[in-house]
Order: sequence, then structure tokens, then C-alpha cells
Amino acid sequence: MKAYLGRRYRLSASHRLYSEALSDAENRSVYGKCANPHGHGHNYTVEVTVGGTINDATGMVCDLAVLDGYVSREVIEAFDHTNLNVLACFREVVPTTENLCLEIRKRLKGFGAAQLVRVRVEETSNNYFEYSEEPVPSL
Amino acid sequence: MKAYLGRRYRLSASHRLYSEALSDAENRSVYGKCANPHGHGHNYTVEVTVGGTINDATGMVCDLAVLDGYVSREVIEAFDHTNLNVLACFREVVPTTENLCLEIRKRLKGFGAAQLVRVRVEETSNNYFEYSEEPVPSL
Amino acid sequence: MKAYLGRRYRLSASHRLYSEALSDAENRSVYGKCANPHGHGHNYTVEVTVGGTINDATGMVCDLAVLDGYVSREVIEAFDHTNLNVLACFREVVPTTENLCLEIRKRLKGFGAAQLVRVRVEETSNNYFEYSEEPVPSL
Amino acid sequence: MKAYLGRRYRLSASHRLYSEALSDAENRSVYGKCANPHGHGHNYTVEVTVGGTINDATGMVCDLAVLDGYVSREVIEAFDHTNLNVLACFREVVPTTENLCLEIRKRLKGFGAAQLVRVRVEETSNNYFEYSEEPVPSL
Amino acid sequence: MKAYLGRRYRLSASHRLYSEALSDAENRSVYGKCANPHGHGHNYTVEVTVGGTINDATGMVCDLAVLDGYVSREVIEAFDHTNLNVLACFREVVPTTENLCLEIRKRLKGFGAAQLVRVRVEETSNNYFEYSEEPVPSL
Amino acid sequence: MKAYLGRRYRLSASHRLYSEALSDAENRSVYGKCANPHGHGHNYTVEVTVGGTINDATGMVCDLAVLDGYVSREVIEAFDHTNLNVLACFREVVPTTENLCLEIRKRLKGFGAAQLVRVRVEETSNNYFEYSEEPVPSL
Repeated sequence: MKAYLGRRYRLSASHRLYSEALSDAENRSVYGKCANPHGHGHNYTVEVTVGGTINDATGMVCDLAVLDGYVSREVIEAFDHTNLNVLACFREVVPTTENLCLEIRKRLKGFGAAQLVRVRVEETSNNYFEYSEEPVPSL
Repeated sequence: MKAYLGRRYRLSASHRLYSEALSDAENRSVYGKCANPHGHGHNYTVEVTVGGTINDATGMVCDLAVLDGYVSREVIEAFDHTNLNVLACFREVVPTTENLCLEIRKRLKGFGAAQLVRVRVEETSNNYFEYSEEPVPSL
Repeated sequence: MKAYLGRRYRLSASHRLYSEALSDAENRSVYGKCANPHGHGHNYTVEVTVGGTINDATGMVCDLAVLDGYVSREVIEAFDHTNLNVLACFREVVPTTENLCLEIRKRLKGFGAAQLVRVRVEETSNNYFEYSEEPVPSL
Repeated sequence: MKAYLGRRYRLSASHRLYSEALSDAENRSVYGKCANPHGHGHNYTVEVTVGGTINDATGMVCDLAVLDGYVSREVIEAFDHTNLNVLACFREVVPTTENLCLEIRKRLKGFGAAQLVRVRVEETSNNYFEYSEEPVPSL
Repeated sequence: MKAYLGRRYRLSASHRLYSEALSDAENRSVYGKCANPHGHGHNYTVEVTVGGTINDATGMVCDLAVLDGYVSREVIEAFDHTNLNVLACFREVVPTTENLCLEIRKRLKGFGAAQLVRVRVEETSNNYFEYSEEPVPSL
Repeated sequence: MKAYLGRRYRLSASHRLYSEALSDAENRSVYGKCANPHGHGHNYTVEVTVGGTINDATGMVCDLAVLDGYVSREVIEAFDHTNLNVLACFREVVPTTENLCLEIRKRLKGFGAAQLVRVRVEETSNNYFEYSEEPVPSL
């Protein structure tokens, strides 16, 4: 029987939403003030959910310290206190929060101690973006 | 590959829970103080989730301004700062938060820029009600 | 040496902001959609702060159960799940949250187990109203 | 058509994570400071989600007072203001939040007024653990 | 008798903490990763508190719409979705949140409908910075 | 001109409220279920506020890393993941949150980089306890 463990991490970063494939007017129309020339920023909350059976000896889905170490190395160190636009992974990809979520998921796919189930990124307290893996028994 | 976008809206409204199909005593028994004669009110949070593929050019599931405009016209303008009981849609339907959630979903079904996936209405910080469409890959 | 104890209570009520002393147009101008004819409502949070010395035997400023009982009888039972406009205290006073705060303070002034220091009422997560008694050593 | 109702409850308890099946060094390695000899504690939030069709007469998935009474008797009275380690159900089971979640689910399975869909336990504002029943139409 | 009204606003901006008066090593030592070359960003919450007597006719300390309009023009339009470092007011002043708070206070001093009492800026959910005017009767 | 900086820390601990100076019946009467024999626990939030002038060169009231280090050594390491009742400072003092707040204030009085202004401890989301130093210009 499967259980889920969700854990929230925080990072602060800046970005500018601007696509080279669009004209200035189109960028302004699509992204509004998010296309302002010098960028702006957010406190992002990253919620990572993993699933697995509960280990009989430890009573845990996976060791939280192991998950924390993995997310810290692969995600927090890469994105916290950065300007997303200058990172290699966003050179040719607009750093929308959808794409940030996708990039985080890619970096966490290799986590071995439990199955990655969902990555959710909150951009503000009113917005979130989410990727989920295969259908799972859940609301 | 599908991604999800969730967005929270707020509205303040009053309601009284009272069913004409029940006696006064039954109303009191079913609804408790929510059946008090002159009504009461809540700050409702409406969380709307839509899903779709990420557009390659824009990096977005759908334009947030388009979603905001649609929800504002169809839902916020209709319910914010109103007494739910006097609205046409609740003339013959008790304005429980379950029914408010169902009514909001009906009004958002026609949204065309992405697929409506879920409507959740928080009545207080301890309560929420939710409708979801077909099963989706998610926790 | 004085310490402070703050405690949060919640109540749901409806109100309409409309002053008999003003014309319809003036009411609309002053209160906006809060003057809509059939009212609307809120989940109010009431934060009550009391101060006193810490009792040596119990280590407490005052017994929380005593404070809870007092606030429940004097405030929560009076206002929770009501329409503020029909209550005696708001017959001739517009039930703005400022006036609700003032009315709550009046009802709590007689609390004897510690000194009433502050009453704060949150109307929404973005708004609060507050009364404080005499200057106290605090930020 | 199915709707969901989620409700949050709170309880405060202490626990120590320590497995008799492991050595002291292994316990320290697996549980870190959660294995400290005299225990520590948390404010747990328990979110219970039930699903069902909306009753035509009442407009409700199930009577909240009935759900509150059931959860209070079966869960809150059992765990609130206790030391989890001394309870019968955790004599031979390490009281991790995963196992607490599983135990709560077991106690709520018999709820008859609506179908139990999910139990989520938040241990801190950064951590949650969750069990879900069969797949349901939802994000 | 004086009452207080607090109102929260939100803005997203980026900044880099770097002082021309310090060497690179000193900047790194004082500001840590906040001195990273390309900046980062935050969702700032600005809480503005004003005080005054309650108007007998309206039951209000001041018209919220008037306060919102003033703060929007003087503060939100100036700072939301900007890079603080490129603004005129931060050309020669490091855009720490302390200095942002001071700058916001300067822009709100002229508010005429009630007395400005306090400006608080939350940089993250764990940090805030605050200016208060003269001592006031309050906890 | 003075500015204030507030910072939130978190710690998890267990305690039992029981005074040797009182009979069992009195303890039960004063502390209710907080006197249950094996204790219970909380996630405490400790908010520390310091004040001072803004340094012209750095734009800061004090270095956050210095404050974090001080609070971590003096408070978090002492109380996090402990049973308060077995600590030396609570051998003869009931570990109410009032007394925990007082003890934390004592340990932070020596902070030299800015003036300690306030210590607030939240026991649950509905309760806080607070000590403030001399009167300061603030709401």
C-alpha cells in the first residue's frame, strides 16, 4: 500500500518573460508587465511529492534528509538567488513558472529513494503550476 | 505532456441555509446556526485549475490575463458582494458551498483557452468543497 | 514585569454598509459595492490581547479557558452567524469593521483576569482594524 | 456526479522516533534529532476528505456535524494532547507521521455518511503525509 | 478616540545587494548570496497602517478606496514588476528591504485622509522590516 | 531614525504543564488536558524583533547572518527537538509558553549588533505570548 510524502522548499529568483520569437509588441501583449525590460522577481515555493510503501523497520516512505539533500543539490543550489534568464537551461527557453516547474521535474526524475509523483511551484500566493506523473490513487 | 495551472480568486458573500422542502425544526437540525433567519457570510476563496500542454512560443499553459478576465466576468462579478439567496441560480437551490462550487463549475465549463480540471471553493480556512472533471494524472 | 497573551477567535457574519444620514448616491460613493442592497459577508478574525504579570505558581498571564469563556459569551455568541445590521447595537450605527471592533472592545472591557490591551479585527486577509488602550512597552 | 468535501482538524502531540529493531547509532542515523531521548512534539493538522453525490434536499455531501463528531471521537480524543509513543497502537510501531496517517485512516474507514477519499497529516508547515483510497477523478 | 486601519499590498521586484563603497570581498561577506551578480527577487508584502478617529457619519477611519488609490499611485506603480537597482531612488542607495521600507514611507508621508502610523515590508514569510512614526497607544 | 527588523524561527518541542506547588486536582483544573501525564508538543514559532539605525554603508539594521547565528546558538540548539520539562531552566519553572518566552528573552538580551525590542512565541496558530522591552515608537 502506497503513501505519499510532500515537502516544501523555498527559493528567491528574478526573471523576465520575453520571447525572442515574438515582437516587442507581442511580448507586451502576451506577458504584460512581466516583460518589463529589467526583470522582477518572486519567492517561489517548490512542493515535491514522492510516493512509496512505508518501510516496516523505519516507518518512513523515504528518509527526509536524503530527499532534502537531493533537492538542495539539484534544485535549490541551481536556482536560489539567481536571475533565471542567465542560466544555461533558460537561454533558449522563456523562464515562465511552467518551464521552471518542468525543469525542476527533469532534475528530480533521477531520485532513487522513492518515486517522484508531483512537482508544484507556487509563484505567488495566488498562482501555482504543477506537473504530475502517471495517474495515482488520489483526490 | 500536460501541465496544470491553479489560480486563486476571492469573493465575499452572504447566505442562509434553509430548505423549503424541510420544516423549521428539520432545517435547524440539518444546518444548525447556518439556518439563522437573517443569514451570515464568508470570505470565499475560489481556486480554479486548468490543464493543457505548454505552448512552445510562450512557455505558458494559457494566458493568465485571459483566465482572469473569464473568471472575473463569469464568477466574481456574479457573486462578489452579493447575498447568494436572492440570486436567480439559488432561488430553488440551497446556496450551500457545494452548490456554489457546482454553479461556478457550470459557468467556467465554456472556458476555451485550456481545459477546466478542478474547481475548489474554500468557505473558511478549515473547509473546502471541490469538483473535478475526469481522472487526470496527479496525486 | 508584564507579558502579553494574544488569542484569535473566528466568526462569520453578514453586513451591509449603508448610512441613513446619506443619500443613495452618497452611500454608493462612500461604500462602493459594500452598499449593495442585500448585503454580503465575511469570515472575521478577532484577535484579543491581554497583558499582566506572570503568576509564579501557574506560569500564566491568565487562564486561557477563562478568557475563552468570556470572549465566547460576550462576543462570539453575539455576532457569529448573524446579520450585523439587525442587531440592537447596529440599529443606529453602520456596522463597519471599525465599529464592530469598537463594539467588541466595549464588551471586553470588563474582563477581570488580566488587562485588555488590544482588539484587532481582520475583515479579509488584506484588512484589519484595531483599537489599543493606553501606551504599552512594545513595538 | 461526485463532489468532495475537505475538513481540517488540529491536534498537539509529542513523539520520539526510535525503533527497537535498530541500534542506537542506526536510530540516530535514520531519525537524526527526532531520536533525542525525551521526545519532542508538533501541532498536527489532519485534513480529511470525503466524497459523494450532493443530496438534492440539503445541498450537502454529508452533514459536517456528523463528520466532526466522528473524527472527534475516533481521532482527536485519541491523539490530542498525548504522547504518541505510550498509546497502544504505537507500542510496536514507530509513531512516524506516516504511521500516524495510516492509523487515522484505519479509524476513519468505517465512516458511513460519505466515502473516505483521503487522509493528509501535516507535521509542520513544510511537511505532509497522505493516504488516498482508489483513483478518483481529480488533479 | 483613535482607531487604526491596516491594509496589505503586494508587489514583485528584483534587486541585487551590492555597495559601491565596499570591495567585492566585503560585499560577499556582508550580503552573502544576495550579492550574486545578476540579482534575484521577492514577492514583497507592504502593510500600511493609518490612524484616526472614526467618522460618525460613515463609521470609517478613512475611505479604503482613497487609501488604495494613493498607495497604488505612489508605491505599487513605482516598484511592482521592476528591478529596484535601476530606479532613480536606488541609484546611490543599496535597495535593501530596510531602504525600500524607508522609501515607501517617504512616498506615503503626504497621505492626507488619515495619519500614517507604520510601514511594514515583508521580504519573505520569515522576515519583515518596519518603520513607525511617533509612539502610539498600542501593543 | 530607528527601524525594526523582525525574523521568525521555528522549533518543535514537547512539554507537560504541571506544578509541584499544586495538587493533582488543581493542576487538572488550571491546565486542563495540558496536564496529561506523558506530555504533548507543539511547533513553536519564535519571532525576534530588533531595532536600530540603518547603517549608511550597508543599508541594514544588522547583519541577518549574525542575528541568525546568535539565535541559533542561544535558542534553537537549546530548545529544538527537546522535552522542555527535562531542561535545567525548567526544572523548577513550569514550561508554559509565557515562561518559554521569558527564557528566550533572557538568552537574547546580550545580543550586541542591534537592540532587542520584542520576543513573541506562537504556540499554535491561535495563540501567542510576547515580551517587549521599553516603549518604542510603534503601533
